[in-house]
Amino acid sequence: MKLKVLVWNEYIVEKENPEAAEIYPEGIHIVIAEALEKAGFEVTTATLSDPEQGFSKEILDKTDVIVMWSHIANEKLEDRIAERVYEKIVRDGVGFIVLHSAKNSKIFRKLVGTSCKVKWREAGEKERIWVVAPWHPIAEGIGDYFELEHTEMYGEPFDIPPPDELVFISWFKGGEVFRSGCCFYRGRGKIFYFKPGHETYPIYYDKNVQKVLVNAAMWAAPVKRPKSIYGKVEPLESL
Amino acid sequence: MKLKVLVWNEYIVEKENPEAAEIYPEGIHIVIAEALEKAGFEVTTATLSDPEQGFSKEILDKTDVIVMWSHIANEKLEDRIAERVYEKIVRDGVGFIVLHSAKNSKIFRKLVGTSCKVKWREAGEKERIWVVAPWHPIAEGIGDYFELEHTEMYGEPFDIPPPDELVFISWFKGGEVFRSGCCFYRGRGKIFYFKPGHETYPIYYDKNVQKVLVNAAMWAAPVKRPKSIYGKVEPLESL
Amino acid sequence: MKLKVLVWNEYIVEKENPEAAEIYPEGIHIVIAEALEKAGFEVTTATLSDPEQGFSKEILDKTDVIVMWSHIANEKLEDRIAERVYEKIVRDGVGFIVLHSAKNSKIFRKLVGTSCKVKWREAGEKERIWVVAPWHPIAEGIGDYFELEHTEMYGEPFDIPPPDELVFISWFKGGEVFRSGCCFYRGRGKIFYFKPGHETYPIYYDKNVQKVLVNAAMWAAPVKRPKSIYGKVEPLESL
Amino acid sequence: MKLKVLVWNEYIVEKENPEAAEIYPEGIHIVIAEALEKAGFEVTTATLSDPEQGFSKEILDKTDVIVMWSHIANEKLEDRIAERVYEKIVRDGVGFIVLHSAKNSKIFRKLVGTSCKVKWREAGEKERIWVVAPWHPIAEGIGDYFELEHTEMYGEPFDIPPPDELVFISWFKGGEVFRSGCCFYRGRGKIFYFKPGHETYPIYYDKNVQKVLVNAAMWAAPVKRPKSIYGKVEPLESL
Repeated sequence: MKLKVLVWNEYIVEKENPEAAEIYPEGIHIVIAEALEKAGFEVTTATLSDPEQGFSKEILDKTDVIVMWSHIANEKLEDRIAERVYEKIVRDGVGFIVLHSAKNSKIFRKLVGTSCKVKWREAGEKERIWVVAPWHPIAEGIGDYFELEHTEMYGEPFDIPPPDELVFISWFKGGEVFRSGCCFYRGRGKIFYFKPGHETYPIYYDKNVQKVLVNAAMWAAPVKRPKSIYGKVEPLESL
Repeated sequence: MKLKVLVWNEYIVEKENPEAAEIYPEGIHIVIAEALEKAGFEVTTATLSDPEQGFSKEILDKTDVIVMWSHIANEKLEDRIAERVYEKIVRDGVGFIVLHSAKNSKIFRKLVGTSCKVKWREAGEKERIWVVAPWHPIAEGIGDYFELEHTEMYGEPFDIPPPDELVFISWFKGGEVFRSGCCFYRGRGKIFYFKPGHETYPIYYDKNVQKVLVNAAMWAAPVKRPKSIYGKVEPLESL
Repeated sequence: MKLKVLVWNEYIVEKENPEAAEIYPEGIHIVIAEALEKAGFEVTTATLSDPEQGFSKEILDKTDVIVMWSHIANEKLEDRIAERVYEKIVRDGVGFIVLHSAKNSKIFRKLVGTSCKVKWREAGEKERIWVVAPWHPIAEGIGDYFELEHTEMYGEPFDIPPPDELVFISWFKGGEVFRSGCCFYRGRGKIFYFKPGHETYPIYYDKNVQKVLVNAAMWAAPVKRPKSIYGKVEPLESL
Repeated sequence: MKLKVLVWNEYIVEKENPEAAEIYPEGIHIVIAEALEKAGFEVTTATLSDPEQGFSKEILDKTDVIVMWSHIANEKLEDRIAERVYEKIVRDGVGFIVLHSAKNSKIFRKLVGTSCKVKWREAGEKERIWVVAPWHPIAEGIGDYFELEHTEMYGEPFDIPPPDELVFISWFKGGEVFRSGCCFYRGRGKIFYFKPGHETYPIYYDKNVQKVLVNAAMWAAPVKRPKSIYGKVEPLESL
């Protein structure tokens, strides 16, 4: 059965910023969705202006993995919606792929428990993304490194917990490094943060970036297990 | 210079439950404070009924490590107070030792990002606490295991992220296991969750439990470093 | 394409010990191989008395994942053979599933760098295997725990490095706990240690044990990536 | 009581290479030893040409933490000596600080179980060492980063297991990154790998490098605990 992926985008900057509009005329989510469809997934898209801000119960119930891009509207996602998505991840094991500035989303910050602050700079400098987990399924098909010619810089310290798995470290021409591919496990959910992706560079058309997103979606697929039992229990053995 | 430890207790059940009152006539915090003082720390105590719920700015500014016990009043800690303590941990690196049912405190749940639910049973059964990190400073002076003759059971699944370090695993006579000593790193803060401690058993008089608390306080001491710079930065190298 | 799994067994005790012979008349490897074949894998078996001790280059070159059972002959595997298997794991990413007393094999000890010693007892006591990584693909289909009515006990301390992922913790009736499902990453290889499996109990007929082995084989599949470049390199950027 | 630190150096290149001799006329070990003595430790030095290659039982029995520098003579350390040092680390918890090319030493490779290969280049380029574990005692006193103006480059992939704690990531002007400060736990021993240190640059005179070495020595101090019991044991509870 096909993996069901929901690509969610706040979809604002592509309508307001001509530079972004030129690169992503239909929105970042459409470019990502096409790449994932080509990989054989069943892909749906949603945006902030949709009913229930794009995260209705109906949509979430048909979702195995969420890919999220957000930036200037991170605070506009309603608390009750953020909570709903959070619960799908930790309780039902829906996978969560967090792109670029979506590190500041309410959902990701609640999952990791830290501020997710970084150093940053929009100078269109070169980023080189190095693989440091040669065994990791998210690195499949990727060589020792790949390059993005022009990117926004994100630099350390990146205020996250120690990642449960560190897959990529980015080098920036201007002198910074960044943990740019990080896995976290929370409840039943698998979460992958992936740094590349400013809206004024054609990052999501890059073949290596697309390969990583495909790999990450498969990695993040929910694991089917019976519900856990919490609360007061009888002893399993005689006391 | 002496390590400054704040022992905070909600201090309710020892006044309401005769069984707890008999074991801890002055409160759990006093027993813990005495053990830490004997180890040479500068110890202060505070409770929920104190001004600012015991977590005033003045007190926090003079604190290196917080030891917290709470249970039935976890939801009574005001959000603004919980937020203040949280910030001291992640921003200033104040250590945080979380005892028993304080896993359900607002502060700990925000730090780890999960529900912290467990299986549990109050049957006074035997708990055996095994060391699985033989190199860990928190295990100093502890043999392969130590025992608590009568305890409340906490059992897996324990809904926490994978601990950054797992120090102890508990065995319970009734058939359960529990990750009973867990380290987490969040921001600048070092956090240690330690399971032992129901109020109706004399857990905090136990010499091994006291040894672990002393070890944990030293381990959790803040690390002095310059403030980090976040936000927009100039390149360190020419682009 | 089908995953190619090699089930390797020293295959001695089932021929020498009548108790083991009755449970595993054709050897432990045959029972495991049948379970993996049912899951749709392409399964081969090999034993210590085969040419090249069952680990010929030809066999290894057609293998994605190795499942290994060994015990009394751990020292009989020639160093050059152990080295060959080790290299396939770390260089080519062949998966390695290490069962029970194969923790003492030369290959596993070289991979982890520690003695792998344990406490043990053959008393046929009950083992209860708890899931502590609810998100883990190796736990798919497994509830909060499963039981083995009669097993050999392995107890902590288990002299291994902190596992990169801890999936299972075992409870034993006699009072011990054990990290019984542990993942390690070494080079390109994914390694899973799984404790269940003494030869005088019908452990490998157990449906939950078989499910774990199937899950682990899929998890351990090699990741296809270009060869890494090591050694002297030119700068990628002008100095 | 003072921490007893043994600074061990193969001490060859400083005698053979005039460039190294000028920077380290008495050997790298003497410069490191002086920095550690200033911090209040009781420091001893030893070299490969000493009796028992500098690792006699007498010396090891009076050592809490070993600091090791080696390069061209990594293969000259006798197996029995490497084994002896290895055993002190994993059995008695002697700390082990591994500098630069000592990653290729027999001792370190046995501890981690991988090849420890890297990319490298001797071009005297700039290295910037970023802190990614803001809570870590080894980073005490260090800002967001520090710089070494001229260094040998070591680049990813670095063939090590995922570090149990990752403290530093290095940026190199030529385009590479490197996990340059890595903690590993093996048996009772705490191990810290620290990349800086080619012999033709005055790396070990750098105040930040010295601060890290002092911090690491304290962090690596042995933890005193009773000997563990391995092997056949009686049940603690009735079966």
